[in-house]
Amino acid sequence: MDQLADTRPYSPGLAGVLAGETTIALVDGEEGRLLYRGYPIGELVDAGTYAQVAELLWTGEWPAAAHLPCRPLTPRVLQALRLLPPETHPMDALRTAVSVWGAEARPAWPPTVEQARELTAMAPTALAAFARLRAGKEPLEPDPTLGTAEGFLYLLNGVAPDASAARALDAYFVVGAEHGFNASTFTARVIVATRSDMASAIAGAIGALKGPLHGGAPTEVVSQLHEIGSAERAEAWIDAALDRKEKLMGFGHRVYRAYDPRAAALRKVAEGQSNMADWLRLAVVVEDIALRKLAERYPDRPLKTNVEYYTAAVLQGVALPPDLFPATFALARHAGWTAHVLEQAAVDKIIRPDVRYIGESERHLVAPPLA
Amino acid sequence: MDQLADTRPYSPGLAGVLAGETTIALVDGEEGRLLYRGYPIGELVDAGTYAQVAELLWTGEWPAAAHLPCRPLTPRVLQALRLLPPETHPMDALRTAVSVWGAEARPAWPPTVEQARELTAMAPTALAAFARLRAGKEPLEPDPTLGTAEGFLYLLNGVAPDASAARALDAYFVVGAEHGFNASTFTARVIVATRSDMASAIAGAIGALKGPLHGGAPTEVVSQLHEIGSAERAEAWIDAALDRKEKLMGFGHRVYRAYDPRAAALRKVAEGQSNMADWLRLAVVVEDIALRKLAERYPDRPLKTNVEYYTAAVLQGVALPPDLFPATFALARHAGWTAHVLEQAAVDKIIRPDVRYIGESERHLVAPPLA
Repeated sequence: MDQLADTRPYSPGLAGVLAGETTIALVDGEEGRLLYRGYPIGELVDAGTYAQVAELLWTGEWPAAAHLPCRPLTPRVLQALRLLPPETHPMDALRTAVSVWGAEARPAWPPTVEQARELTAMAPTALAAFARLRAGKEPLEPDPTLGTAEGFLYLLNGVAPDASAARALDAYFVVGAEHGFNASTFTARVIVATRSDMASAIAGAIGALKGPLHGGAPTEVVSQLHEIGSAERAEAWIDAALDRKEKLMGFGHRVYRAYDPRAAALRKVAEGQSNMADWLRLAVVVEDIALRKLAERYPDRPLKTNVEYYTAAVLQGVALPPDLFPATFALARHAGWTAHVLEQAAVDKIIRPDVRYIGESERHLVAPPLA
Repeated sequence: MDQLADTRPYSPGLAGVLAGETTIALVDGEEGRLLYRGYPIGELVDAGTYAQVAELLWTGEWPAAAHLPCRPLTPRVLQALRLLPPETHPMDALRTAVSVWGAEARPAWPPTVEQARELTAMAPTALAAFARLRAGKEPLEPDPTLGTAEGFLYLLNGVAPDASAARALDAYFVVGAEHGFNASTFTARVIVATRSDMASAIAGAIGALKGPLHGGAPTEVVSQLHEIGSAERAEAWIDAALDRKEKLMGFGHRVYRAYDPRAAALRKVAEGQSNMADWLRLAVVVEDIALRKLAERYPDRPLKTNVEYYTAAVLQGVALPPDLFPATFALARHAGWTAHVLEQAAVDKIIRPDVRYIGESERHLVAPPLA
């Protein structure tokens, strides 16, 4: 088609444009449902671990048991992390680790479940190693007895987390593992659709998730909870914020008009803990008040709690530094990204949309010769 | 929309789906036109250099003069390249160099023309350094008096190329600089559309171009020319290949039904050289015979020479190792990728298409409680 005469309707950002088919997840915003391979996210959080969920995403089958301990870094990946300045953005460190891993491992076409396992289990080790190195500490060797999420905390802190923190972070990894076509997952699919490799796809996805329009800002929820400070102050603080027409962080979502099922699942994990930490109690109280106030003031708007609200509560609760939150989200999302890479590779068709040219008409550097 | 009830028509690979608007290039396959910012590619090759064309792509203005020498690597980028095993895929080495550069430089939002210049001028230095390291040689410092393409050859070989090789490779860089929305350019745009950074976008684009469905296989043209061997053998070889229903490499293109204007521009550069090398003479003779034979046998098919044909001729002619061809294409394409990053950043809207769920209906890990 001559782009100059191209008058097709155009959808900025491809909103509403169907770009593929998937069997991995159903994101049902109207009903507040998120299914991985058909299973509701709440049941997966209740009954499963991240290792099981990752296998489910990759293979479509629910395994009775699974264990995905963090895997050691190759010496080259570790050396690459040692090169980076301490002020490196953690997402840049993770992207670089994946890139070096790919250079060295040369993951073959077509991508495999074992490549997915390797990257998903290597990424937490890489991020933890970077976090220790920038703090002047030596990286640690993974403990093969620990699961992915608790193993990551061990690699960060040098001590295994208590059961409550391990459970909360594993639940967070489960709800963060997959969410249909978003900008980073779509990036991974576009890359692998050229028959490029798993590492190229995941390095690209990390780069996309780094953007604040995608990776989000759970740290803002943390700031909000810090400002509120205590359950007693919550109602007055929220009223004052809403009086000033300020946005409450952690409420409202592009897709979910009902309660975000991921937030519900994380709250349930929080409430089920015998020894609920103060920060978590505060989060629960603030949520209840905020939902009541939002419903009173904006009865027509579906401003429900979103996943970032409890993400902030959990990640702060396990004492993660806030500037690691986006990269920790990336760790969780590795299971989904790599599952989409496997699915796209089976489609084996390049993704190459059209563009409409709206620039200069043909012009010339030199005057054309006279006829 | 409930994905389960989603019956919208679906275009695999987004073929024919408008995903954006651009003022950078017009790809007019019907007429065999390629315009950068309105200027025909043939005129740009005749009258300009890669440095001028890159500035044109970034700024929209044709500069009377421009100089874009290869830039030195930071010590960290060079150390990262030293880490890589010699058998590393050159595209993986380039992707890693860009990733480390981004980690260190922390290119700010919004992306800038200066970031585009830096990456475009650093990438050839990185690729040449990797190529020397894997051969057991020390990398060289860029010669600031040389242009991008000739500077790259100097960094590879330790001697500045003759004027003829420099001119041919610069012309190749010009025709490779930009080609609308393709999988790698689209990848870069999806990444930066999240407000991620220039380095994340280019690392993703390199990963996409690595795929053989996108980066192509000019080395197959080289093999074909080697097999043909001499102008005298060309007609018999082509007849025999077509009798066996084999595909001639370097002919036919998805977009161009007319003669690919990039191939035309490169052939003109070749023919204009006072001292045409034997390999180039062979390429010209083989092209003429192949076009005549293809027209005789397939009069209804528009099987014209494509850009890979003369790409192979030029890159072989300047003595590039064939396994560096795809990464050298990536070097040339940096100007276009970075121009698209600048254009997409100005749009500042996340790119997030829909997906249709075709997986399992809702199912349960445990039997639901009886009502």
